[in-house]
Amino acid sequence: MAKTTAAAWMARALQLARRGLYTTDPNPRVGCVLVKDDRLVGEGWHARAGEPHAEVHALRMAGETARGATAYVTLEPCSHQGLTGPCAVALIDAGVKRVVVAMTDPNPEVAGRGIAMLCEAGVEVEVGLLEEEARAINPGFLSRMTRHRPFVRLKMAMSLDGRTAMESGESQWITGPHARAEVQRLRARSSAVVTGVDSVIFDNSRLTVRASQLGLDDADVIARRQPLRVVVDTQLRLPQAAACLREPGRTLVATVAGYDGERRARLESAGAEILVLPADENGRVDLVALLHYLAEQELVNEVLLETGATLAGAMLDAGLVDEMQLFVAPTLLGGEARPLFALPGLTRMAQQRPLEILDIRAIGRDWRITARPGRLQG
Amino acid sequence: MAKTTAAAWMARALQLARRGLYTTDPNPRVGCVLVKDDRLVGEGWHARAGEPHAEVHALRMAGETARGATAYVTLEPCSHQGLTGPCAVALIDAGVKRVVVAMTDPNPEVAGRGIAMLCEAGVEVEVGLLEEEARAINPGFLSRMTRHRPFVRLKMAMSLDGRTAMESGESQWITGPHARAEVQRLRARSSAVVTGVDSVIFDNSRLTVRASQLGLDDADVIARRQPLRVVVDTQLRLPQAAACLREPGRTLVATVAGYDGERRARLESAGAEILVLPADENGRVDLVALLHYLAEQELVNEVLLETGATLAGAMLDAGLVDEMQLFVAPTLLGGEARPLFALPGLTRMAQQRPLEILDIRAIGRDWRITARPGRLQG
Repeated sequence: MAKTTAAAWMARALQLARRGLYTTDPNPRVGCVLVKDDRLVGEGWHARAGEPHAEVHALRMAGETARGATAYVTLEPCSHQGLTGPCAVALIDAGVKRVVVAMTDPNPEVAGRGIAMLCEAGVEVEVGLLEEEARAINPGFLSRMTRHRPFVRLKMAMSLDGRTAMESGESQWITGPHARAEVQRLRARSSAVVTGVDSVIFDNSRLTVRASQLGLDDADVIARRQPLRVVVDTQLRLPQAAACLREPGRTLVATVAGYDGERRARLESAGAEILVLPADENGRVDLVALLHYLAEQELVNEVLLETGATLAGAMLDAGLVDEMQLFVAPTLLGGEARPLFALPGLTRMAQQRPLEILDIRAIGRDWRITARPGRLQG
Repeated sequence: MAKTTAAAWMARALQLARRGLYTTDPNPRVGCVLVKDDRLVGEGWHARAGEPHAEVHALRMAGETARGATAYVTLEPCSHQGLTGPCAVALIDAGVKRVVVAMTDPNPEVAGRGIAMLCEAGVEVEVGLLEEEARAINPGFLSRMTRHRPFVRLKMAMSLDGRTAMESGESQWITGPHARAEVQRLRARSSAVVTGVDSVIFDNSRLTVRASQLGLDDADVIARRQPLRVVVDTQLRLPQAAACLREPGRTLVATVAGYDGERRARLESAGAEILVLPADENGRVDLVALLHYLAEQELVNEVLLETGATLAGAMLDAGLVDEMQLFVAPTLLGGEARPLFALPGLTRMAQQRPLEILDIRAIGRDWRITARPGRLQG
């Protein structure tokens, strides 16, 4: 039988890492495989902040067999004191001979230190195997560490003619149950859901993860962690009776200075946390400041942006949208219905906003288009 | 070796029929295969009106070998006197033993007569093999014969946010060269291209098939037949200088009574043919009357509707669109840009226009969505 390739072992470690997709927040998703004589002797993944890292799980499973083994890890082993000590030390102590790392730790303050510890201890180290795949698992953690802002994923549900709601605001439901379950899963993997106050007023959306709608085996466990709800609400217009204020988890209402009076008190008494941010040149909540706050103060990795044309357009125009997931229903809502993006000032073809389409696939009766801002090619 | 199935032979006949896609107009596309002892002994397809039918080509190729053979024909052999006599008689005279027909002739006046002639002469006849595929090759011919109107294929080029042009009307080019070549091929298979006068005014489109842009081997031959250009122009606003009036082929301008004066004379002198049709309740060209005229008087099988939101919406609302081909460019044009469909009166979700998506595929950097008006499923 042919020897299993290093890439195949790393692919298995990546699969393990993905098991933490909905639970590791704010930590990164990490997987580890221990291999000796072409046999898997240990494996593990990081499940939840405060619980052991992937390497520790794998080493426990391998026991004494770890001696002389090769470890495949999707992220550079940590060098700092955690609950169970630095993972680099654990690997050294267990006598692991070789460590293959998909990517270095993106945190500039620690990057390379785990690898250095391994090398100093005489462990062979290889870095970069399936790096792109490893990076794709933790877009938010990477963004927070290197850009000091979260990875922003914009989700919109639209008709085939690019409309998100009737002129009246009526929008439930454009897409079908499969697409809505997919949105639930997008929420569940996100640290925060960001929306505009008008969307909350129109839809009275709860912005929560509902176990019954996730369509996942461990839905109850996943739904215990509710993403932080963030309402961009410059003038504090959020109704005290908004459904999202009555749900488990926190609701942060982002405003600017000058709305400190009765509205603020009323919302705080209804359970909202008020966040006062700088205003942009139009007097509205500064979106860069908001994202910076979320990354630095709330440790938000991935943001799911679920909102209407105005905030979506503003985020896009500010270059703050990293990925779009457009759920397209096979229906037409007509020329009077609400647009996907307000992009004020876009009047000439030369100003169009090109996208790069990464994926199109059927989701029940609807279609999901994954795209990111990009360049237009001929 | 396993015996070739009847379906495989019919599939080959269908492939042959498709070779006439761009040239048989106004005749249907038909293919024929003659098989004896599990071997192909003759094949043919109808290439062009006035030239022999598929069966005649196949019989000529087979010669004496046709005796005792089985014929696979995608459309019921004709029973009327053509250039080379009725094909049913030709098959009988050649001693063909069995005829497998994908579908009967849709013309109610002749349907079944060819089959009856074969049966009366003692030829075994089987009908209905791959019927759906055979019908799909000739949607326009079928529509003309049974509904007395053409098959209407609506083509639109749009941004991902459902916009066909900037607010100013600027639209060249939303889609890339591959999509534009596909539109050329859609024109080439159509008997007529229908557009609204505003589209002609904005784009000054020629509405012609250009050999150099077809991307087909026999492009020069195909481009010799230009589809009939039809401009819906109630008030005869078409500029005398419109590019489409100077191209090879005919341009029909559809108007209503009351515009018989100077405008008409000027357009006629520029080469347009003026067609006066009844007005609808809004005083505009009655679209049902237009399609009826095109089918009955101009023998139009397939119409390619290339137009803006108003005429596209009116055709859709009148239930006259059979298929849509939406070319979606990976770009955003914003909320002020021109909509895909004007659908006046559509204000509630319950009134949305559901579509059935038949196909989505990449065309160069763009995507093509094929859809038809349908029901919304849960």
